[in-house]
Amino acid sequence: MEKYAVIVAGGSGSRMGTPVPKQFLLLQQRSLLWYSLNTFLHAFDDIHIILVLPEENMAEGEKLVTELNAGKKITITKGGSTRFHSVQNGLRFVTEPSIVFVHDGVRCLVTKGLIRRCYAQALEKGSAIPAVAATDSIRIVDGDTSVVANRNDVRIIQTPQTFQSAILLPAFKTTHQESFTDEATVVEASQQKIFLIEGEYENIKITRPADLLIAEKILAERSSLQ
Amino acid sequence: MEKYAVIVAGGSGSRMGTPVPKQFLLLQQRSLLWYSLNTFLHAFDDIHIILVLPEENMAEGEKLVTELNAGKKITITKGGSTRFHSVQNGLRFVTEPSIVFVHDGVRCLVTKGLIRRCYAQALEKGSAIPAVAATDSIRIVDGDTSVVANRNDVRIIQTPQTFQSAILLPAFKTTHQESFTDEATVVEASQQKIFLIEGEYENIKITRPADLLIAEKILAERSSLQ
Repeated sequence: MEKYAVIVAGGSGSRMGTPVPKQFLLLQQRSLLWYSLNTFLHAFDDIHIILVLPEENMAEGEKLVTELNAGKKITITKGGSTRFHSVQNGLRFVTEPSIVFVHDGVRCLVTKGLIRRCYAQALEKGSAIPAVAATDSIRIVDGDTSVVANRNDVRIIQTPQTFQSAILLPAFKTTHQESFTDEATVVEASQQKIFLIEGEYENIKITRPADLLIAEKILAERSSLQ
Repeated sequence: MEKYAVIVAGGSGSRMGTPVPKQFLLLQQRSLLWYSLNTFLHAFDDIHIILVLPEENMAEGEKLVTELNAGKKITITKGGSTRFHSVQNGLRFVTEPSIVFVHDGVRCLVTKGLIRRCYAQALEKGSAIPAVAATDSIRIVDGDTSVVANRNDVRIIQTPQTFQSAILLPAFKTTHQESFTDEATVVEASQQKIFLIEGEYENIKITRPADLLIAEKILAERSSLQ
């Protein structure tokens, strides 16, 4: 089956307090995005990557592709005003039938193992949304009251959100809604059921400065195991 | 109003992979618990602390009290088999009327500011449960389906969970239930409403090795600002 990874790297560095968009921050001399791309490239020999970047960062994207020696495997395209629009843009390059991964560029600790498990489940069930159990108590607020969620039932959602193209592409033929916070919500709005899969605790989204430190530590541990 | 802080430090180091219980792990030469105790001691001159420890760590607790020169302000008592039982044990030392903070010993980055805000709200409304917004998507699973939670409505719960003694003490005169995952759930089971308050992102629970690194970084930043 054809494989496409739409890597979304549209975020600005606002919460990081850095002038560089966070996907271009460095970890051991490589940008966060380099790690994400590199892992997908090594997960499958025949994967196509669609890298969705803000217009002002497309030149940096080209440099990254050269660095990875992956000119034939990576297509760069421009992001939109929301994640939904960015993904919609990226999906124009997908051919059918295929399995499509949609991944946050700043989840640079994703592993080949997780990517391959997502592929296998999406092939079988139609989708694979990585999720991990919560370690803190969670409440759902409603006005000035709140209700505790049963911790056993709470899952924190990650990426790559993975789908059969026959499910994902039709779902994105719609207009943007506020409730589209990820690809799973878009697919559900098209009346399709989605399926979770066990994610990985280390597959964190780099959002705050402290997250970079965690990522550095995890990378150092991984390279010491190689 | 009298002030009591029940600091619960019952956890083992299982997820840390260390032989030392995590509350005794060191950050810049001080144990996690030292920071928690020190911040509460400095939040109010007239606070009483009830430190709940596993029996095998009571001697280390005594050492910590000496180190903090806080013999008159800290009472050490033995933990129970669950968090509920540990807190119940600690509450035996509380006199009424008072405001009672219940705090995870391993949330060592709690600030005086948060403690004082919790105090003020509990005095006014009866309780103050610190909570922060979620940065990841959250789903609630039910069998093999799941429903996305509206991210605007999701709160991640922290401590110190703070209450008027007239609300907390009667609530704990009950037997343990599976659903008692924190003090807020115990109070709710006694038909009392609880009130959230804005928590702090840095007020993390030290659970995994990477959390220690974050804590180190945050402490270093704080001391550079002093």
